Amino acid sequence: SVPPGVLPLCCRQPAWGRAAWQPPSLPLAPCRAFSNNKILVELDESSGVATMKFKSPPVNSLSLDFLTEFCISLEKLENDRACRGVILTSAIPKIFSSGLDITEMCGKSMEHYAEFWRAVQEMWLRLYGSNMVTVAAVNGSSPAGGCLVALSCDYRIMVENPKFSIGLNEAQLGIVAPFWFKDTFVNVVGHRVAERSLQLGSLHPTPEAHRFGLVDELVPEDKLQEKTAAVMAQWLALPDHARQLTKSMMRKAVLDRLVAHREEDIQNFISFISKESIQKSLRMYMEMLKKKKS
Amino acid sequence: SVPPGVLPLCCRQPAWGRAAWQPPSLPLAPCRAFSNNKILVELDESSGVATMKFKSPPVNSLSLDFLTEFCISLEKLENDRACRGVILTSAIPKIFSSGLDITEMCGKSMEHYAEFWRAVQEMWLRLYGSNMVTVAAVNGSSPAGGCLVALSCDYRIMVENPKFSIGLNEAQLGIVAPFWFKDTFVNVVGHRVAERSLQLGSLHPTPEAHRFGLVDELVPEDKLQEKTAAVMAQWLALPDHARQLTKSMMRKAVLDRLVAHREEDIQNFISFISKESIQKSLRMYMEMLKKKKS
Amino acid sequence: SVPPGVLPLCCRQPAWGRAAWQPPSLPLAPCRAFSNNKILVELDESSGVATMKFKSPPVNSLSLDFLTEFCISLEKLENDRACRGVILTSAIPKIFSSGLDITEMCGKSMEHYAEFWRAVQEMWLRLYGSNMVTVAAVNGSSPAGGCLVALSCDYRIMVENPKFSIGLNEAQLGIVAPFWFKDTFVNVVGHRVAERSLQLGSLHPTPEAHRFGLVDELVPEDKLQEKTAAVMAQWLALPDHARQLTKSMMRKAVLDRLVAHREEDIQNFISFISKESIQKSLRMYMEMLKKKKS
Repeated sequence: SVPPGVLPLCCRQPAWGRAAWQPPSLPLAPCRAFSNNKILVELDESSGVATMKFKSPPVNSLSLDFLTEFCISLEKLENDRACRGVILTSAIPKIFSSGLDITEMCGKSMEHYAEFWRAVQEMWLRLYGSNMVTVAAVNGSSPAGGCLVALSCDYRIMVENPKFSIGLNEAQLGIVAPFWFKDTFVNVVGHRVAERSLQLGSLHPTPEAHRFGLVDELVPEDKLQEKTAAVMAQWLALPDHARQLTKSMMRKAVLDRLVAHREEDIQNFISFISKESIQKSLRMYMEMLKKKKS
Repeated sequence: SVPPGVLPLCCRQPAWGRAAWQPPSLPLAPCRAFSNNKILVELDESSGVATMKFKSPPVNSLSLDFLTEFCISLEKLENDRACRGVILTSAIPKIFSSGLDITEMCGKSMEHYAEFWRAVQEMWLRLYGSNMVTVAAVNGSSPAGGCLVALSCDYRIMVENPKFSIGLNEAQLGIVAPFWFKDTFVNVVGHRVAERSLQLGSLHPTPEAHRFGLVDELVPEDKLQEKTAAVMAQWLALPDHARQLTKSMMRKAVLDRLVAHREEDIQNFISFISKESIQKSLRMYMEMLKKKKS
Repeated sequence: SVPPGVLPLCCRQPAWGRAAWQPPSLPLAPCRAFSNNKILVELDESSGVATMKFKSPPVNSLSLDFLTEFCISLEKLENDRACRGVILTSAIPKIFSSGLDITEMCGKSMEHYAEFWRAVQEMWLRLYGSNMVTVAAVNGSSPAGGCLVALSCDYRIMVENPKFSIGLNEAQLGIVAPFWFKDTFVNVVGHRVAERSLQLGSLHPTPEAHRFGLVDELVPEDKLQEKTAAVMAQWLALPDHARQLTKSMMRKAVLDRLVAHREEDIQNFISFISKESIQKSLRMYMEMLKKKKS
């Protein structure tokens, strides 16, 4: 078993020449059992491109298990010299990811909240700081943490569909996106769009998301795979080393900020989420979701 | 009587749960007499929305009296649990506010300059840091300090009219917008637009202001009230606490910067404005305005 | 002779009232002989506008000689009260500047690399921090360092031509744009466009460069001179002092950052450029250019 609040990560040999940005001093821990059925990982050795396909019904929510599997899968690819790029997409129709799993934040112990939040941080540090080319093929709605996953990639292609939306809508649930969600968002859409969108907890329809630069392009569903492959090929045409150092230069300030305030951020999350008023509104939200389903 | 350079503010009990951002250590002072006829304040208790209507002829210039009344009115609303949002607009045709009152900066004592500048800072700290939803209904031209007032709100709706313009045109008068005007501007329009606009002292016609994101939308005059109410309702649909914390997260860095350099900023203003060359160009500008009027 | 790594600059009397931003503690050095035939400088005393026309065949590459001449010419104009604005343009058809001269970075001594890099820094510090109005009349392609020269001006007008492109394409050559190239780029186009463009080493066709804000306007070749003069006149209509202080306020943070890390940045450049892998790819690139030519 693992000490609470520590995400186990096994294979840590850095691939040589892939050292542009590294989250410093990650705690090592023995492996615990982890799910390996929430994300389908396929690596095409000829192109050097892996696909991580989220397949955690009903809505690919970011549970502790999902996040652990995500980090370990990403880490393995990061350390695999045969892999230079990763495509993130969903195997579930109409949803990319619904974001953080609310059941992990409701009626659990302080230790559990800490462990969960550390895993959320870990996922972002590894994805936003990845040395690989990361492309989000957003084939469904992508609220809150799902939007963060997309924002953390190098490029976002979204399926144009009047039913799909994307955004950091935390404020709608009465909760606040942490500063590093905000920093990531500001780096993509600028300060003004982020300020307005975060305060309103906006879920943007696809044309608006494209206009604001929240996604880089829109495609019809049947062109998604082809377009994603073409974009990935364009990014992989560059020499890895210069591209990695450039990416690191652009993202280092924001990555370092979380690394410097990581424990504080966990404490903030715990004390916020364990408030009775917040617990109450999360319970109400979950009731609402259950009723919707049935 | 009040010590020079201190803006008196009376009612300071913070509304509970409204503590997202607070300008630290504001000097308390006994009340002096202050005008209460330059701004018409009306609170609609059913909606929780107040309107502050500027009615200081001829051009709603930001005199020391106006600023004092503005701060006290805003403070009262901030502390009134019945009030959740404020609309800023003008009762004077064709002008929202002409900006800082030049007569306060011309031929006065050092003490007066200090008191005046502290009041300008205070206005911005309270408005930009307000926990309420603030919407500017810009129904006329809005140069310099008038533009700052609009920029400090959460949302800007401007009446589309070929005769109206908006911008931080200080450079046109040979003076320099202080760093916190600049920071506020950059947060709205980005670095490049701000750099160019501030150096040229541009007054942007309404379509350009909209294109640059300086205002969020344009409406015909007769739709302004309806549109403003609809926008306010949209923002008030969010739970206050999460929205306030989010707003604070977005604006804190810029607010803290003035708080940290407040006295220095006052000294800079005094030494700049009391230069004979600056006094001379302000006098010339006032002469020109007088001639225009007659 | 001059100590290695020190760019000699002769006339250093600052023009009075032109002290908005000054690179601190520049090393003074006795004059060495320098070319004065790579840039044609003409000052029109009636308008106060100088033109610096690059005429260093075949492609206006930024050699050590070119950079030295550039800095000395700019310095002379900066100190000439008759001069208030500078237009940068090219006398060579189809190319504005091809950027840093690769022969200066290939097969030379450490001392040479240091001297060269200090000259590149010096050029940027003087141009980005210039108190004069600087307008780039980009009448040809402008990759890498050529793009930096344009980005460092106050305004960019580019000739619309399907054969011209502009961008910081360093990553294409396997090298990394230094942080101050990046800072300058981010200040013009924002974080997201810069992140993507730098990683891909994009050379943007003129319509795209305009859409991203990398250039401010596009004109047909035969309108370039007229348009440039009109833009310069618009900027010179403002009082110098307020405009200079405003420009300094906008650019100081980024200028100070290089000044604070100048020696470190030189060391980084030397250790990067002297790597055998980098030398090899630069040699291959030069071979390719030679073959293209013949």
